[in-house]
Amino acid sequence: MEQPGTPDFDYYPCDHKINHVEYTSHALTLIWSDQRTSQYHACWLADNDAGSAVTNTLTREREIDFVDMPGDIGIQQASVSDDGTLNIAWTADWPESRFLPGWLRAHDYSNDPMPDDGLRQATTWNINDLTEPPTTDGTEILRDDDVLEAWLDNLAQYGLARLANVAPDDGMVADVVRRIGPIRPTNFGFTYDVKTKANPDSNAYTDMALDSHTDLATREYQPGLQFLHCLKNSTTGGAGTMVDGFKVAEDIRVENPGVFEILSTWDWTFTNRARETDYRWVTPLIILDRDGQLSELRMTAFLRGPLAMPFDRTEKAYAAYHYLVEKIREPQYRLRFDYRPGDLVAYDNRRILHGREAFSSGEGERWLQGCYSERDELRSRLRILARNRRAAIIGTK
Amino acid sequence: MEQPGTPDFDYYPCDHKINHVEYTSHALTLIWSDQRTSQYHACWLADNDAGSAVTNTLTREREIDFVDMPGDIGIQQASVSDDGTLNIAWTADWPESRFLPGWLRAHDYSNDPMPDDGLRQATTWNINDLTEPPTTDGTEILRDDDVLEAWLDNLAQYGLARLANVAPDDGMVADVVRRIGPIRPTNFGFTYDVKTKANPDSNAYTDMALDSHTDLATREYQPGLQFLHCLKNSTTGGAGTMVDGFKVAEDIRVENPGVFEILSTWDWTFTNRARETDYRWVTPLIILDRDGQLSELRMTAFLRGPLAMPFDRTEKAYAAYHYLVEKIREPQYRLRFDYRPGDLVAYDNRRILHGREAFSSGEGERWLQGCYSERDELRSRLRILARNRRAAIIGTK
Repeated sequence: MEQPGTPDFDYYPCDHKINHVEYTSHALTLIWSDQRTSQYHACWLADNDAGSAVTNTLTREREIDFVDMPGDIGIQQASVSDDGTLNIAWTADWPESRFLPGWLRAHDYSNDPMPDDGLRQATTWNINDLTEPPTTDGTEILRDDDVLEAWLDNLAQYGLARLANVAPDDGMVADVVRRIGPIRPTNFGFTYDVKTKANPDSNAYTDMALDSHTDLATREYQPGLQFLHCLKNSTTGGAGTMVDGFKVAEDIRVENPGVFEILSTWDWTFTNRARETDYRWVTPLIILDRDGQLSELRMTAFLRGPLAMPFDRTEKAYAAYHYLVEKIREPQYRLRFDYRPGDLVAYDNRRILHGREAFSSGEGERWLQGCYSERDELRSRLRILARNRRAAIIGTK
Repeated sequence: MEQPGTPDFDYYPCDHKINHVEYTSHALTLIWSDQRTSQYHACWLADNDAGSAVTNTLTREREIDFVDMPGDIGIQQASVSDDGTLNIAWTADWPESRFLPGWLRAHDYSNDPMPDDGLRQATTWNINDLTEPPTTDGTEILRDDDVLEAWLDNLAQYGLARLANVAPDDGMVADVVRRIGPIRPTNFGFTYDVKTKANPDSNAYTDMALDSHTDLATREYQPGLQFLHCLKNSTTGGAGTMVDGFKVAEDIRVENPGVFEILSTWDWTFTNRARETDYRWVTPLIILDRDGQLSELRMTAFLRGPLAMPFDRTEKAYAAYHYLVEKIREPQYRLRFDYRPGDLVAYDNRRILHGREAFSSGEGERWLQGCYSERDELRSRLRILARNRRAAIIGTK
């Protein structure tokens, strides 16, 4: 049972009451039992009305856009009912609205214009911080939500998290990832087998070492998440390596701002080289968001296409690239681990650079099975797991 | 048979010969039979060597990164063979390289640092330019590459292209999209049926009108391509509508730069409202790339979450939103068309806003089947179709 009076399917337990309401036609102020003051605009309240005049009660999606409400809508009267909800009568010809205090408190943009959604914040690391992938026992991963949440919490925070003892069965990685959300298929398939192949269509399918890289840098969207499940490993060598690309980029930004500027603004080309597909993408190697924060790294030496920069930038660009690669290779950044059958490693492919050491394919068998998904699915699943806990609180009140 | 001497699987027919070569240790100049002059750096040439010292001849991916070549690599001697290829001997201890003239000409960054990959450039439109979706007969879409290419060329250019007479069979849309590349599954499934449902999890599954919108604005990546295939339609109403969001944005940029600034820099929240998923994304409504060019629109009124902006921006933000919605609704932008069984409409979901008028679900049956894919797949398929033509030219020479 969802709570009535909210425009979504979530739960909003609240330890505080609305003690006092003040309003003008344009805005409303609440004073809470803990003395906190919250303000809301009339237009914002009208826009977020959970009632059937605005919100479809089946889909909980908005039926009437704000633009189609009376242009002169304003607060005529506001009061708190005995059950604690806020009731608003409007100046225009428009049905009354009611708002749950817990929902209002959770969306108090006057005090916090970027409310915390409860997900773990990313923390960058090198091998002084992490000496092995954060690990959760995965025996019960298909059944136990606590195991799922512990694993995903690590993935949200470190961009890297391992499950141990996941049944080493063909197809198991897909079953595990479906616990989070849909898999993202690519030209390499729905899932893919990382084994040596007679006629490889990627260096990944040989026994050579792979330098630290992101996957599918050739695409408009690099997959947000990658999963590798070890089914068999009796070869020598082939250790996995992980580098927190955000940590490397942060350090370059401090140590060599000129190189950082080049790496984060000049465009490189990535191209795949295949018989049936021809993906290309042009992008800086370090991608910042509009606020200058690290958003993504693109780094796959074996998929770099011919550099196509203005002529006089070319040598400088190669020098910056050289600097970046040497930095990524510094041992302080490289977390190294063995793949044991049953290990399932997940990482943020837009932040973490993964690689492997060479192995001897003549001596034994090595079989990793992998797939991709998106960071959206990780965040959605963590929010739903938290929502389920809130539902339990509401249910017992 | 691919051409030897290129670091990829493409074909490089060339009508021009290298007449003359000049070089220093650091750079090389070619003078072609048509008098064009091209320059290349030594580091660039070494980095793009297609020989087995650098490139894996099976995968055509780079095996040795530039960083691992001799630091002092420079041109010792350069000459053109009788067969027209350029041969380079290096100053360092490194195997000789050879380059095909067609490949060198196609990657002449000294004259064109952003080479044209042959894809149709996007052109924006309103209903003075297009009165119906550009349409190709799709009877042979599963067999005929020319039909595929004609359809996809329109999609690349207009962001909107229709096939007519595609067999109205369940699952056909997936077969057609697989001609381009992998389908992107979402929480709505691999494909989805747009019909009225008893317990809808989206407004799309009701019979109500849907304002012009993009799909999945709640995700880190809105799907690049959407496909809707009409299998049945005996209802009244329900016309499809398409608006070129880039055209609207271009016009706002000129007519009201202040509003454009707000729409392209202030963050809005999109949230889906579902029982099993909780996707959220924070983004401007108009998204520009680093050069200020239009990159994407995000616009789904029924998935707008509670606005979470600094308090003093809120009323201005609503006013800008109001302006945008009214602009999108201007009849000059709204291409309107009927869904006939057999029609399959494709559009760029990051550029084109789609919608529908209300229909009467009591009177007949309306069944659209849809799925998503990415713009990467469109571009890759068009390049491969063009590559196949180049192969034919090489084959007959």
